[in-house]
Amino acid sequence: MSGGASTPKTRVRRHPERASYDAAVVHAILDAAYVAHVAVIVDDSPVVLPYACARVGDELVLHGSTKAGILSAVATGTPICATVTHLDGLVLARSAFESSMNYRSVVVQGFARVVVDRDEKVRLLDAFVDRVLPGRRAQIRGMTDVELQVTQVVTIHLDAVSAKVRTGPPKEPETDRQPNVWGGVIPLTLAHGKPQPDEFTDPSVTLSLSKREAQ
Amino acid sequence: MSGGASTPKTRVRRHPERASYDAAVVHAILDAAYVAHVAVIVDDSPVVLPYACARVGDELVLHGSTKAGILSAVATGTPICATVTHLDGLVLARSAFESSMNYRSVVVQGFARVVVDRDEKVRLLDAFVDRVLPGRRAQIRGMTDVELQVTQVVTIHLDAVSAKVRTGPPKEPETDRQPNVWGGVIPLTLAHGKPQPDEFTDPSVTLSLSKREAQ
Repeated sequence: MSGGASTPKTRVRRHPERASYDAAVVHAILDAAYVAHVAVIVDDSPVVLPYACARVGDELVLHGSTKAGILSAVATGTPICATVTHLDGLVLARSAFESSMNYRSVVVQGFARVVVDRDEKVRLLDAFVDRVLPGRRAQIRGMTDVELQVTQVVTIHLDAVSAKVRTGPPKEPETDRQPNVWGGVIPLTLAHGKPQPDEFTDPSVTLSLSKREAQ
Repeated sequence: MSGGASTPKTRVRRHPERASYDAAVVHAILDAAYVAHVAVIVDDSPVVLPYACARVGDELVLHGSTKAGILSAVATGTPICATVTHLDGLVLARSAFESSMNYRSVVVQGFARVVVDRDEKVRLLDAFVDRVLPGRRAQIRGMTDVELQVTQVVTIHLDAVSAKVRTGPPKEPETDRQPNVWGGVIPLTLAHGKPQPDEFTDPSVTLSLSKREAQ
């Protein structure tokens, strides 16, 4: 990733014109994501589960319970894949074949590193909190020893990684462009709604999403 | 799925109280999704890629180019997993440990069936178009023979499937509930923006999202 190089494994074969191996593109897509879809092989079959994710430097960080299946599995050195996708629009061409979606996605492949150092673990978990809401970490209590013990933190280095992006209107043969049929894009966005405080929050305490929405 | 039964493979081990094997729950989650994250094993490693998806009866349908890697791979009988996730909210507890996300997800595991019958292929591909916008199929031209030839359609039967759902405010120990720290949920929704017609659409032709938004 550092050099923006692709590896044979992560080279995009289908629609290579949509591919990018540039670190800035990859980081921006990862940094906009709350969730990655993570796959490992369990009993000779792939299993995909959603996990909260955070990029820290050249690594994608995941965490879960030490009791959970698939993050425990990676500790034994089994290969892992984490994919992030933002769906940006429905692309309506005047045929099913040329209809598509606008999206930004990143595929990360590799082997997971299990974080054992206490300080590093704390630092990486803090990144998740501030990722969701900048500055939040300073407002809440830290992890207890017991909590740290039952939390597995793993990282995947961003060297075997590729981004794929589609933007813009439908692309279709001229003969398909009947002006009486609507063609174009229905934009999609993951929108943040009005924060809903729980019953224990003092009514005078409010939450500002401005930092979040500015991204 | 028909009987709502879980199999050992798909049984939810972590937070089993969030699990469901009920067909109605599973179908509703799948039907609200545009995209599934699909994994297969390629060269002994898992690969996850986003695919458009549509549920038709007791099957999840995917399509792609016959030239593309991972849907071609499943034709040889390799196991496949498709996961759908809707992120519904960021759950902010007053500790990192109890913070969470609200979501609805479905994991489908199995083997893919490659659709070879022409009529069935057409019918399943039509479902994708009407899925995105009900009634759209009748307005656009059908698939050509060449388009059908280069389009791979596969289905996964919904028998090894599980749903997992988290809703509601943070759950945390009473001692964490400091009223001067905001706790609650920031709702998230995949919002449809104003449709953007391309330059070939006659200005008198409009697109109604009402059927879409009503879902």
